[in-house]
Amino acid sequence: MKNSLGTSVILTLFGESHGPEIGAVLDGLAPGIPVDEGFIAAQLARRRPQGRTDTARREPDAFRIVSGVFNGRTTGAPLCILIPNTDTRSADYEKNHGLARPSHADYAAHMKYAGYEDWRGGGHFSGRITAALVAAGAVALAALSAKGIRIATHILQCGEVRDKDFSEFPAELDLVNGKDFPVIRPVEVEMEAVILAARERSDSVGGIIQTAVSGLEAGLGEPWFDALDSVLARALFSIGGIKGIEFGSGFALAGMYGSQANDPFCLQDGQVRTRTNHSGGIQGGLSNGMPLVFNCAVKPTPSIAQPQQTVNFLTGEEAVLHLVGRHDPAIIRRICPVVSALTAIVLCDQLALRHGTDYLR
Amino acid sequence: MKNSLGTSVILTLFGESHGPEIGAVLDGLAPGIPVDEGFIAAQLARRRPQGRTDTARREPDAFRIVSGVFNGRTTGAPLCILIPNTDTRSADYEKNHGLARPSHADYAAHMKYAGYEDWRGGGHFSGRITAALVAAGAVALAALSAKGIRIATHILQCGEVRDKDFSEFPAELDLVNGKDFPVIRPVEVEMEAVILAARERSDSVGGIIQTAVSGLEAGLGEPWFDALDSVLARALFSIGGIKGIEFGSGFALAGMYGSQANDPFCLQDGQVRTRTNHSGGIQGGLSNGMPLVFNCAVKPTPSIAQPQQTVNFLTGEEAVLHLVGRHDPAIIRRICPVVSALTAIVLCDQLALRHGTDYLR
Amino acid sequence: MKNSLGTSVILTLFGESHGPEIGAVLDGLAPGIPVDEGFIAAQLARRRPQGRTDTARREPDAFRIVSGVFNGRTTGAPLCILIPNTDTRSADYEKNHGLARPSHADYAAHMKYAGYEDWRGGGHFSGRITAALVAAGAVALAALSAKGIRIATHILQCGEVRDKDFSEFPAELDLVNGKDFPVIRPVEVEMEAVILAARERSDSVGGIIQTAVSGLEAGLGEPWFDALDSVLARALFSIGGIKGIEFGSGFALAGMYGSQANDPFCLQDGQVRTRTNHSGGIQGGLSNGMPLVFNCAVKPTPSIAQPQQTVNFLTGEEAVLHLVGRHDPAIIRRICPVVSALTAIVLCDQLALRHGTDYLR
Amino acid sequence: MKNSLGTSVILTLFGESHGPEIGAVLDGLAPGIPVDEGFIAAQLARRRPQGRTDTARREPDAFRIVSGVFNGRTTGAPLCILIPNTDTRSADYEKNHGLARPSHADYAAHMKYAGYEDWRGGGHFSGRITAALVAAGAVALAALSAKGIRIATHILQCGEVRDKDFSEFPAELDLVNGKDFPVIRPVEVEMEAVILAARERSDSVGGIIQTAVSGLEAGLGEPWFDALDSVLARALFSIGGIKGIEFGSGFALAGMYGSQANDPFCLQDGQVRTRTNHSGGIQGGLSNGMPLVFNCAVKPTPSIAQPQQTVNFLTGEEAVLHLVGRHDPAIIRRICPVVSALTAIVLCDQLALRHGTDYLR
Repeated sequence: MKNSLGTSVILTLFGESHGPEIGAVLDGLAPGIPVDEGFIAAQLARRRPQGRTDTARREPDAFRIVSGVFNGRTTGAPLCILIPNTDTRSADYEKNHGLARPSHADYAAHMKYAGYEDWRGGGHFSGRITAALVAAGAVALAALSAKGIRIATHILQCGEVRDKDFSEFPAELDLVNGKDFPVIRPVEVEMEAVILAARERSDSVGGIIQTAVSGLEAGLGEPWFDALDSVLARALFSIGGIKGIEFGSGFALAGMYGSQANDPFCLQDGQVRTRTNHSGGIQGGLSNGMPLVFNCAVKPTPSIAQPQQTVNFLTGEEAVLHLVGRHDPAIIRRICPVVSALTAIVLCDQLALRHGTDYLR
Repeated sequence: MKNSLGTSVILTLFGESHGPEIGAVLDGLAPGIPVDEGFIAAQLARRRPQGRTDTARREPDAFRIVSGVFNGRTTGAPLCILIPNTDTRSADYEKNHGLARPSHADYAAHMKYAGYEDWRGGGHFSGRITAALVAAGAVALAALSAKGIRIATHILQCGEVRDKDFSEFPAELDLVNGKDFPVIRPVEVEMEAVILAARERSDSVGGIIQTAVSGLEAGLGEPWFDALDSVLARALFSIGGIKGIEFGSGFALAGMYGSQANDPFCLQDGQVRTRTNHSGGIQGGLSNGMPLVFNCAVKPTPSIAQPQQTVNFLTGEEAVLHLVGRHDPAIIRRICPVVSALTAIVLCDQLALRHGTDYLR
Repeated sequence: MKNSLGTSVILTLFGESHGPEIGAVLDGLAPGIPVDEGFIAAQLARRRPQGRTDTARREPDAFRIVSGVFNGRTTGAPLCILIPNTDTRSADYEKNHGLARPSHADYAAHMKYAGYEDWRGGGHFSGRITAALVAAGAVALAALSAKGIRIATHILQCGEVRDKDFSEFPAELDLVNGKDFPVIRPVEVEMEAVILAARERSDSVGGIIQTAVSGLEAGLGEPWFDALDSVLARALFSIGGIKGIEFGSGFALAGMYGSQANDPFCLQDGQVRTRTNHSGGIQGGLSNGMPLVFNCAVKPTPSIAQPQQTVNFLTGEEAVLHLVGRHDPAIIRRICPVVSALTAIVLCDQLALRHGTDYLR
Repeated sequence: MKNSLGTSVILTLFGESHGPEIGAVLDGLAPGIPVDEGFIAAQLARRRPQGRTDTARREPDAFRIVSGVFNGRTTGAPLCILIPNTDTRSADYEKNHGLARPSHADYAAHMKYAGYEDWRGGGHFSGRITAALVAAGAVALAALSAKGIRIATHILQCGEVRDKDFSEFPAELDLVNGKDFPVIRPVEVEMEAVILAARERSDSVGGIIQTAVSGLEAGLGEPWFDALDSVLARALFSIGGIKGIEFGSGFALAGMYGSQANDPFCLQDGQVRTRTNHSGGIQGGLSNGMPLVFNCAVKPTPSIAQPQQTVNFLTGEEAVLHLVGRHDPAIIRRICPVVSALTAIVLCDQLALRHGTDYLR
């Protein structure tokens, strides 16, 4: 489905970095879900560049909902959200057209679209599109919240600075969701220092972000290709900057013995739980009632102001690229609400499939 | 699509560990692809338990193709492969029914299927089903090979023993595909020692496996939800034992600077290449013409012979589980052909979408 | 999805007329649905050639369920039913290979599959495949019946002989389902006379079949591309012999005025109903709580024993085709259970989407 | 996929009759297709109310393309077209809210969406949405035209006035596409008289429209659920006013003998053709190289100015509905470009699947 995701609740994205508007269509939502435009605006604000660590491209994200909402609630028809692009500077890109930005999609897109792609600012590959995704995801997040399901994403690692893992649910989730710079321990200043130091050197940093979901029932997902980890990973790898995903203890499990890695079951207040959560809440592709926890590896922002070796794919010659303009030395902070939004949309789809289209009303 | 995967080339799996037969339907293959039953048998042999390190459940995998092949070639109609189950010992499972095996799907499946699930040997969640997948994947592997596309998966890490990363393409891929115990450097003996030591302690080990694809064109995939990494990850996380996936340098990118992580473009024999391949052959969700490289974290086999704390979900009481019978101390070796098979099927789908249904003839 | 149908409940077909086995996979069924093999056998018997009016190809349809059923109930995992082919006479087809049978798929299939198709007996295009479909549909029919939803298909017209329209629900549905030759009024003898007269002249006849569903709730379906009529029509046109579908008064509506065609709403025992049912139970793509009624136009069986002008697509010359062997002078009787089966599977999917995967347990 | 249609080329619709904007997203188009805004405007003009026979709701359809087009050509990214709603009079609908308009979706939608639906002017069920569909279809029509594939739809029957069937390809297709009132023979005046006479009596008329496609290759489609007739019928029944579809001779085949209904193959200028085209260009679900021909039965517009018996679903009482405002006495003329647009989108999808995503450039 290319730019669409989901089976019963379906997200479709469109738009380009330098086009007039970007947008998202969210189809299959239960009718009757309250739509709070203030909450959408707040989620967009979390994704928006701000402060000292972000790109200088600043846009108000003046979204408008053109369908699917009536009297403040979803109607059950497709909900379309549009966001105009305002602060575009295509001229910055024109002089470098043909010079493949390293670790960007430029060259691969040129090979796929034979030169017809809108190359200004990354076109349809741009992280700008995630604004529409965050807006749509806000509706999903609110619907889940009304069912007691909370989602939060924090920066687990930036440079060598590391936050703690989620361990108290849902307290830490609420804590993180209340912060502009989403971390559990007070490591903002240290992480910002890493980012600013990189900017100083015309460089950029990556990091690891961690997402948790509390309040999720057991039995969501499917055994094989709609396994909960499968559908989440499909959604999350759509973000160009994410290069790795691990559920629970993930890659660390590779070095453990079964006797260490297995999560023993126990009873807590009459409920079946596991004593540890190395599985990250998923066993055999199904949620097991424990908090869902996964980490995403985010590569350093590939746009850096240093000169870089590259190829001009229009002339077929090697060249040196001097990127000008406004770069993000790190997108890890801004990617957090995107991952939460995608997670929310995937879970809405799963719940609608299991319990029917009206479940999330 | 639950037990189905793909858009133009579509795989569907069915069957249970202790049912009469398991099977796979592979629909949408180009007509005219040669089907070599010997090659299918060889791939199945690589997945089959053998030697000292595997489970004692030994099955001949006497597959038969019941549709979609005529005069030794695919017809374009759905190809169905069936494999009988022979060496099943349901009695081993009956006495433990209700006792959730830690880090298995038992409990989550019970919550999903309300007790109607076929719980014998993991039922439809069993790794046994991957035999059908490997058989179907063999047809896809051969079709790709005829186009110069090679796929191989080796054990990158087992315990603390580490193989080298793929770096010579396609030489190392051929090397690995020719081995029963797929490693590049001669680390078989060390790795087997780790596995046997674990078995000695009634324990199990996990590991990391690495897959590479050479000969892949640039421009495969889509910008968002059908990104090449998205569709591969969806396919691969269907395997219960895989808990993490990273493309290229993956999680290591999180600790790098942009100036280190970016892959500079260059010309090699007139071809656009990158000097490094931290991206693992994917940028912006599209293949970039470099070798596709990704790692999967495989958790230790959860079936271990040690007593484990658990819950009986039929009685609602805590209990101690003594697993009897035949356990794999490690499945990393046997999971390698499964990952290659899934990769092949995903790539056939992508190539068919891009170039049409007849492309792989 | 080519040989697959559905979103939450998904049917996949495979097999060829002269291959070893044909089969169907029905995925996404609620766990816990009783599976009555006797009822499946009875449905297969209704599709099987019998009596004086059908082809002499007679097969026992010794189906077996190889997955998805445990202790007599569905498990929630994919249910695979296999049926061996026994009475195949490929030699009949070999001597005519290359001669396109008029109004069969032979020529178009040759153009699609470039000569790799299994051309024996129509291969994967054969009506034989509908046996697997009927077997899978039997499980769906039984699940719907347990919810008070009844489906029946009768022969509305054969030659110039016409049965009455369904008008008493569900009495006439039960009546029709209890008959080998499904008609409401006693027109069997007249219709059989039409068929036998055609056979006498080495000719064949078509007809119109009518399907009704009673007990269906209002609000099933979607506004646009998953409209209830859309999904039913997609399913039904998969049958090669069906060349027209109309819902309610269908083509007759074209000649009516709005004041005649509109169905006035009224109250009956406190329930909202319509006085007439020209809409056939669907308005705006949604069920409206009235009986669902639709007609399918079935073309005359294209296999006739008369000499026919055609082209040999292997030699590129005009030729005369003398079909030998066993032909059905009419398939309208045998197509009735196929249409009911497809309708049942589509409705199970719709109900699962609306009310969740467990609804039909 | 609810409001989405297609596999490789995917259409998504959104919007409501009285919302601010309606729109369509067309994803998966080949990059490099010229986009002629004048041609889109011309297609929209053909769907727009005009002359004496149409509703008085008149809108300029000032569409704008917000994504997927760059330098006048498609980019390969999703193309989104938006059309503002301007001439909406919600007050007309408010006073009748709760009174189910007979043979409209009102009541069924109320049952599906539990009262949360946007009921103004039919909401998302409104024919208004087809404006977006026609705009998107214009891009598809132009792409097909560049490959020599022509599509036209004319009014075959209105009241008792009947046009002739398509028989000269592509001459009649061009003729019809050049007319505001699409008929082959000069029957405009007669048909308009039928429509105006109905309007005089506050009534409405239906009719039959016929679509033909010339220049289509043999072998498009699939044997079962993606049969060409299946996918077309799914698309076309999405239009609420269409209650029947027949391919080729359709329902007339039911009364014919096989010897009359079969289309004998012959050679014409070295090409394989059929002497007759009762099959309407489709055999076994595949195109056979003959013109594709199908008819759609269009019910009379259900909005009529006569008092009608109905039920108030908010109060649960019987009532009499007096529809006020602006009604179409016939939509058959305006539905013609909608059917051509859907047909074009379906065929683009089929061609992309068969020949790859770049085929239509």
